[in-house]
Amino acid sequence: MNCVVDYAPDCDFPLENLPYGVFSTNSNPHKRIGVAIGDKILDLSLVCHHFTGPKLVSQQHVFRESTLNKFMELDPASWLEARNTIQKMLSLDNTDIESLKGCLVEQKDATMHLPAVIGDYTDFYSSVHHAYNVGCMFRSKENALMPNWKHLPVGYHGRASSVVVSGTPIRRPKGQVCPEGASVPQFKPSVLLDFELEVAFFVGGKTQLGTSIPINKADNHIFGMVLMNDWSARDIQKWEYVPLGPFLAKSFGTTISPWIVTMDALTPFKVANTKQDPLPLEYLQHNDPYNFDINLTVAIKPEASGIKSVVCTSNYKHQYWTPKQQLTHHTVGGCNVNPGDLMASGTISGPEESSYGSMLELSWKGSKSVPLNDGTTRKFLLDGDEVIIEGFCQGAGYRIGFGSCNGKVVPAS
Amino acid sequence: MNCVVDYAPDCDFPLENLPYGVFSTNSNPHKRIGVAIGDKILDLSLVCHHFTGPKLVSQQHVFRESTLNKFMELDPASWLEARNTIQKMLSLDNTDIESLKGCLVEQKDATMHLPAVIGDYTDFYSSVHHAYNVGCMFRSKENALMPNWKHLPVGYHGRASSVVVSGTPIRRPKGQVCPEGASVPQFKPSVLLDFELEVAFFVGGKTQLGTSIPINKADNHIFGMVLMNDWSARDIQKWEYVPLGPFLAKSFGTTISPWIVTMDALTPFKVANTKQDPLPLEYLQHNDPYNFDINLTVAIKPEASGIKSVVCTSNYKHQYWTPKQQLTHHTVGGCNVNPGDLMASGTISGPEESSYGSMLELSWKGSKSVPLNDGTTRKFLLDGDEVIIEGFCQGAGYRIGFGSCNGKVVPAS
Repeated sequence: MNCVVDYAPDCDFPLENLPYGVFSTNSNPHKRIGVAIGDKILDLSLVCHHFTGPKLVSQQHVFRESTLNKFMELDPASWLEARNTIQKMLSLDNTDIESLKGCLVEQKDATMHLPAVIGDYTDFYSSVHHAYNVGCMFRSKENALMPNWKHLPVGYHGRASSVVVSGTPIRRPKGQVCPEGASVPQFKPSVLLDFELEVAFFVGGKTQLGTSIPINKADNHIFGMVLMNDWSARDIQKWEYVPLGPFLAKSFGTTISPWIVTMDALTPFKVANTKQDPLPLEYLQHNDPYNFDINLTVAIKPEASGIKSVVCTSNYKHQYWTPKQQLTHHTVGGCNVNPGDLMASGTISGPEESSYGSMLELSWKGSKSVPLNDGTTRKFLLDGDEVIIEGFCQGAGYRIGFGSCNGKVVPAS
Repeated sequence: MNCVVDYAPDCDFPLENLPYGVFSTNSNPHKRIGVAIGDKILDLSLVCHHFTGPKLVSQQHVFRESTLNKFMELDPASWLEARNTIQKMLSLDNTDIESLKGCLVEQKDATMHLPAVIGDYTDFYSSVHHAYNVGCMFRSKENALMPNWKHLPVGYHGRASSVVVSGTPIRRPKGQVCPEGASVPQFKPSVLLDFELEVAFFVGGKTQLGTSIPINKADNHIFGMVLMNDWSARDIQKWEYVPLGPFLAKSFGTTISPWIVTMDALTPFKVANTKQDPLPLEYLQHNDPYNFDINLTVAIKPEASGIKSVVCTSNYKHQYWTPKQQLTHHTVGGCNVNPGDLMASGTISGPEESSYGSMLELSWKGSKSVPLNDGTTRKFLLDGDEVIIEGFCQGAGYRIGFGSCNGKVVPAS
């Protein structure tokens, strides 16, 4: 496709992508909705009168909001119409290129914000490799997976207030930890600070309490995806999490990438679902592929050296449970969902050691050192370490990129 | 005190109470903030020009909002000034009683709504009696309390979207359950549906990510309290909750009472904190009493008979951890809080059997029947059962009431 904006073939944001985000600029500090194209952002608040299709002609106001929630509340047909309209606007055969250029902002001049008000954030635990690894470490090979794990997508409610956009510094948390063998805890900064490589989807549409989303309609409620770092303090987690699950070990910060890649952009990268054995209960069964070939990397860049080292190369397709299964399970008891709810995959580990999505697994519970390119090693994260998650789908001559999800560890206060 | 509105000595809402809520009426469907007084509501949107004190004269707009979040975002001095202003308005020596009467609405004519947008909802587990009972049932007397329980207020993130206001029907959830001894789960309506008697506080003020609230300032961030029913599906919970905690067993609905009783109204009912042994870590220690003598009851009213039976008589003061400790612990790792965040006590069971705050405990895991006044018995809740939680503090000649937190179980869909 020929685009008004020039970009290279390995650009994250070609005309085939068109992810949504919320940005502001020094010259206009008002938060507004934009679409990434090449190294620019199309300011949708300035072009909303172009959305004249049958679904959106009466909904142009959603593009003048300061978050994406109202747009997310619409339906897949509206999202597709928006995509087609934007692709047309940005195509070279667009009749009014000059006026369009006035609606483009350089990405380097923009500050990105959370794309939506996140009403609720849920974290699943859907990588069998991750669950197995953790189970081996803390239990045994034989009992690595809990009895429920292959029957339902295990998940828990996370803290929504501390979800932040890429680039926000993450302060090393203090908390209670209980050293091995001790019976009395200590209060101190976490020394087992970790990342978790995740991908999360934003919910679209809205359901009523007491209703559920059947599996064959679940994709209608999946708006798009972002990269996520579910920062974790393993020492705090170990002491606090029985019996009610992770709490302060996670709530000190969760980073997401600013651009929401839509499911329409991801559709060409659908791959077969992971074979599930045993077959899950009927309400969770679907045969249509809803798994995605998304290349993922995690890099650590220490402050002192500034040298970036990729420590994990994984892929979203390793997930055992699909997003459709996650969402259907979430609502099967009647829990209502709202536009802007965020649902994360859980740590995405692949089968090989190089694809493990956390330092916990890469250092095998701290039993071995992970070498970095600057000559230092890591078992867990140090102050000043920047963690950079990146992801993309590789098309023929283009890629659908997610941009970057990064955050630097700052010392405990 | 002499009030413009007449009420009996056992009225929930005397001039000493003045709880805040959000209501609408048939004649004015706009949601607005009110204060309960006797059997009436003072419509604060109509009297906001009376808030002329130094803290509120520039903040009158908070009383024209459709939720309490903006008012909650202010500080304790503002909340106290509002209380004093409202008390003065409602006193008999108020000079303009006739115009005030035009701002009063009958409670029976009002529909109550959620008082705030709840950004995050956290549920603690702070009754030692409840934790001990559950531990005895599922483990043993010797290991009833987990090693961490007396060192930190155990809590978890709950689902905010499904918190509903009193009167909302609760649909019996369907979900995965795994019968005793079976290895394969079934999908069906929960048969072990339960209530949990709780009291929750709303957070006031706002903190930044990476900061924490010291224990000696925690009360500055506690706006007021409501009654809560943390509906629970025990069979779903049992199968799903290891290792990440309760999820669908709770997210099908959580009911709160509509009127937020302020901490200023509760101050006269402070009682000594529960003695904590061992002493918790220093960041959790406080000597000032921040425990409250709140009488609590739970009643079941079956649809068929319409006869109400009190099945539990408990008291908030049985809590082991104080709300100050809960809030300080919640933020100690840097988790930020927002006005309108809701933090619940966990099931409030007392030491006697009659004070157990759930059917799980009252029927001791279904091993005995709880008799009702209509001649029927219960082990868990049946369709058509209305659960009614009530609470009050008894003063000399008056009571600070919480009103009612109720919900009726409707059949699974």
